[in-house]
Amino acid sequence: MPNLASIAFTLQRDSKDPLFVQLCDQIRQRIVSGWLLQNSQLPPSRRLATDLGISRSTVVTAYEQLVAEGYIEGRTGAGFYVRELADLDPQDSARNAAPSSPISSSIPDATPALHPGYPDNRLFPYRQWTRCLARTARLTPEALIVGKSPFGDLPLRQSIAAYLADWRGLDIQPEQVMITAGSVDALENCIRSLAMPGDVIGLENPCYRPLRNIAANQGMRIEWLSVDAEGAEIPSESRRTATPKMVILTPSHQFPLGGAMPVNRRLEYQQWANANDAWIIEDDYDGEFRYAGRPIPALASLDTSGRTIYIGTFSKVFAVSLRLGYLIMPPPLIARFADTLAKFGVKAALPCQRALANFIDSGDFYRHIRRVRRIYAERRRLLLDLLQQKMSHFVALQDHQAGMQVTVTLAPGLDDREICAAAGARGLLAAPLSSYYGAGEASHGLLLGFCPYSEDEIRDYVAVLSELLEARQRRVQSLQSVF
Amino acid sequence: MPNLASIAFTLQRDSKDPLFVQLCDQIRQRIVSGWLLQNSQLPPSRRLATDLGISRSTVVTAYEQLVAEGYIEGRTGAGFYVRELADLDPQDSARNAAPSSPISSSIPDATPALHPGYPDNRLFPYRQWTRCLARTARLTPEALIVGKSPFGDLPLRQSIAAYLADWRGLDIQPEQVMITAGSVDALENCIRSLAMPGDVIGLENPCYRPLRNIAANQGMRIEWLSVDAEGAEIPSESRRTATPKMVILTPSHQFPLGGAMPVNRRLEYQQWANANDAWIIEDDYDGEFRYAGRPIPALASLDTSGRTIYIGTFSKVFAVSLRLGYLIMPPPLIARFADTLAKFGVKAALPCQRALANFIDSGDFYRHIRRVRRIYAERRRLLLDLLQQKMSHFVALQDHQAGMQVTVTLAPGLDDREICAAAGARGLLAAPLSSYYGAGEASHGLLLGFCPYSEDEIRDYVAVLSELLEARQRRVQSLQSVF
Repeated sequence: MPNLASIAFTLQRDSKDPLFVQLCDQIRQRIVSGWLLQNSQLPPSRRLATDLGISRSTVVTAYEQLVAEGYIEGRTGAGFYVRELADLDPQDSARNAAPSSPISSSIPDATPALHPGYPDNRLFPYRQWTRCLARTARLTPEALIVGKSPFGDLPLRQSIAAYLADWRGLDIQPEQVMITAGSVDALENCIRSLAMPGDVIGLENPCYRPLRNIAANQGMRIEWLSVDAEGAEIPSESRRTATPKMVILTPSHQFPLGGAMPVNRRLEYQQWANANDAWIIEDDYDGEFRYAGRPIPALASLDTSGRTIYIGTFSKVFAVSLRLGYLIMPPPLIARFADTLAKFGVKAALPCQRALANFIDSGDFYRHIRRVRRIYAERRRLLLDLLQQKMSHFVALQDHQAGMQVTVTLAPGLDDREICAAAGARGLLAAPLSSYYGAGEASHGLLLGFCPYSEDEIRDYVAVLSELLEARQRRVQSLQSVF
Repeated sequence: MPNLASIAFTLQRDSKDPLFVQLCDQIRQRIVSGWLLQNSQLPPSRRLATDLGISRSTVVTAYEQLVAEGYIEGRTGAGFYVRELADLDPQDSARNAAPSSPISSSIPDATPALHPGYPDNRLFPYRQWTRCLARTARLTPEALIVGKSPFGDLPLRQSIAAYLADWRGLDIQPEQVMITAGSVDALENCIRSLAMPGDVIGLENPCYRPLRNIAANQGMRIEWLSVDAEGAEIPSESRRTATPKMVILTPSHQFPLGGAMPVNRRLEYQQWANANDAWIIEDDYDGEFRYAGRPIPALASLDTSGRTIYIGTFSKVFAVSLRLGYLIMPPPLIARFADTLAKFGVKAALPCQRALANFIDSGDFYRHIRRVRRIYAERRRLLLDLLQQKMSHFVALQDHQAGMQVTVTLAPGLDDREICAAAGARGLLAAPLSSYYGAGEASHGLLLGFCPYSEDEIRDYVAVLSELLEARQRRVQSLQSVF
């Protein structure tokens, strides 16, 4: 057992990062760099706390975070061990070891243009944002009109670089940031910069629907990657004719199934990309919304060879209609992305970029995220409780403690498109899980949003949806008894 | 000769439209509708003026506008006649009958991201716009954040419909307007809505460069349409294997050659689209910038069977960085475009849409256009005069009295890419005409911007460019004398 205390840890009491975060970061770094070997045991929390002169709960919190991220695992009665990073048995994942018991579900008000996974516009910080916008327009009017770089406004690129360092563990320069008109624009720029029509692209099955439309529209051949409990499986050489030129992954929170990719598979993906001269596009669409622990560092933060392009968006944490997102280019690719913008044009609007930079730098943006995350956590908890209480006969789910929608699978015999259509007719919004699959057998389930609804609205709609599912299951049962 | 005065003209002295505009609109309507037959003679201006009780100069101005638009032609000593709309002889076009004599050229300051054809950001109405933006943010903050339709903010769609009725002769409903993230986004939405990968698309040769990149990227087979003095030629059945599913045209001001498509070819295009079940995309990128007469009505205004999609942009008349444009959908296509947005996502940012609507409705937008058009007309005049005075040995041009750049062709032996590279090294910006061709023999020439430069800047840069061209021509001549 290595004496972790003997490593030159640099815990700083006056840092803005809490001690548990510093400890967690430094242990993780030592695992990723290979300093801490697979299967090696971590010191008992009490001893490490004494050695470092910190409280035991600080060590315990750091260990729990590393368990959640998949770097270490607890073995009953035997303490904590560094996970075998090459071990691909999904049952081995601490995160996924205990599937939640089947519980029940509901969905709230449907206005046109609302989808599960949207934020609550009623929580938008209108006063702070319009004040910031007006002040920015008054003080730097030319920043709203005169673009100096096709990659976007430099102050915003600086704010994003700082934000990603704090929240997603990315160590990048502002010059690597390209501002885009949302995630889809970012994905299109990646495909146009890094692939040719006819190339194979690996997509998660199921995945975000516009993704497969874009890929097909741009002449890519789609290779569907099955999603297991650890996320998308690695493209396997043996059973395929062509190796994907790129894969698009949602490692923080698989869309739409939920679940985070543990570090072993993340590292295996990096190895795969290196070995196959391929690109990994990390679509971190809602990485900020983890309700237990702190956000898991991005897959891109493990990349040591510049093969991962990270995509983020302000649609989820700020407002969909802002149409601003970003992608992070490994430095050698900057010229290639610039060339793509020159060839295909820039789509991201400039006018709000400086204001958003000021909003981030002022701290209002972080306050807003913390506030909505707290509220969404409560709404999510309520939805899960109600699913458990009222609908456990119809639906099953795993609690991934993350994201902006809950995905449940349906009891056998229930058709998700039929149920979503019936829900729509009652004014409820739910998206059918089966519609997100591109190939093979599709699970039937429901994507249920909770962010845009008040607790009362969630209660009302669970009642309606549960009534609807009951009626439908009665029909299924009566049909079964007839035939 | 029909007695035009006997037609129930409805000239209104208290209308916001001048009498000559009303007369011109009504004669045009009667030509397009077939009431006035081809080759029929118009009454002498003096007699029509007496009959209508208006001044002769009003009639003359209306006739001159109709000549410029290609609806009528003057025959020496014989008055004005309705043109044969089926007549395709380019020499017959009054507009193009007299090619300008060869004159000379220059180009101004190059900052990164500036291209010929860009507006002058120094003329941007910062004070009025930021005041409008701040007031909109204060009064209707939710309009900056909450989108009600994927097609964009309804008040802006209403303002655009009114604007197009006034300026481009389009009679449309706000529901037909889709707000886009600039022209390229509009073009991508058209291709995705109306064509399938593998379909043939007709593009003007030469054309706007991103256009061919987009078309190729989306798997379209490109059919190049030669551009003659009347614009792009009609795709001909005989010499091709597949008929284009759509053509993309710049009828107001061919990009980059200049020149407007006369009404006969416009009508022939409409007939072609009807006969071939094809779509016409009218890219009216700078239709507002006509320096003689008023803007020529859009090709889409002649469409009686819903086969033309009109695309406009605020990049030229307002600011490139705003990244807002629009497309006009014939009503039966609205559902198809909505489906495309659902499949591929919306890229146009909402936050400035309401403010822009308010800016248009307040009249500040129209005042801005009139102001910059007057200034650009002066700058353009100066550039043309200097080209004539200092560079007529090297370059030739036709004066199309429209647009935001001047395209000149180069004297034989001069290579446009080489000259543009040399100009770039001296800090001057010019784009090589040959790079806009997609097939066949490319003319060598220069695209010279004038909008973003003051008169002093234009003088400075004509001097530098002319010096540069002289040196280059001396080298070409000395090489010729050696070999």
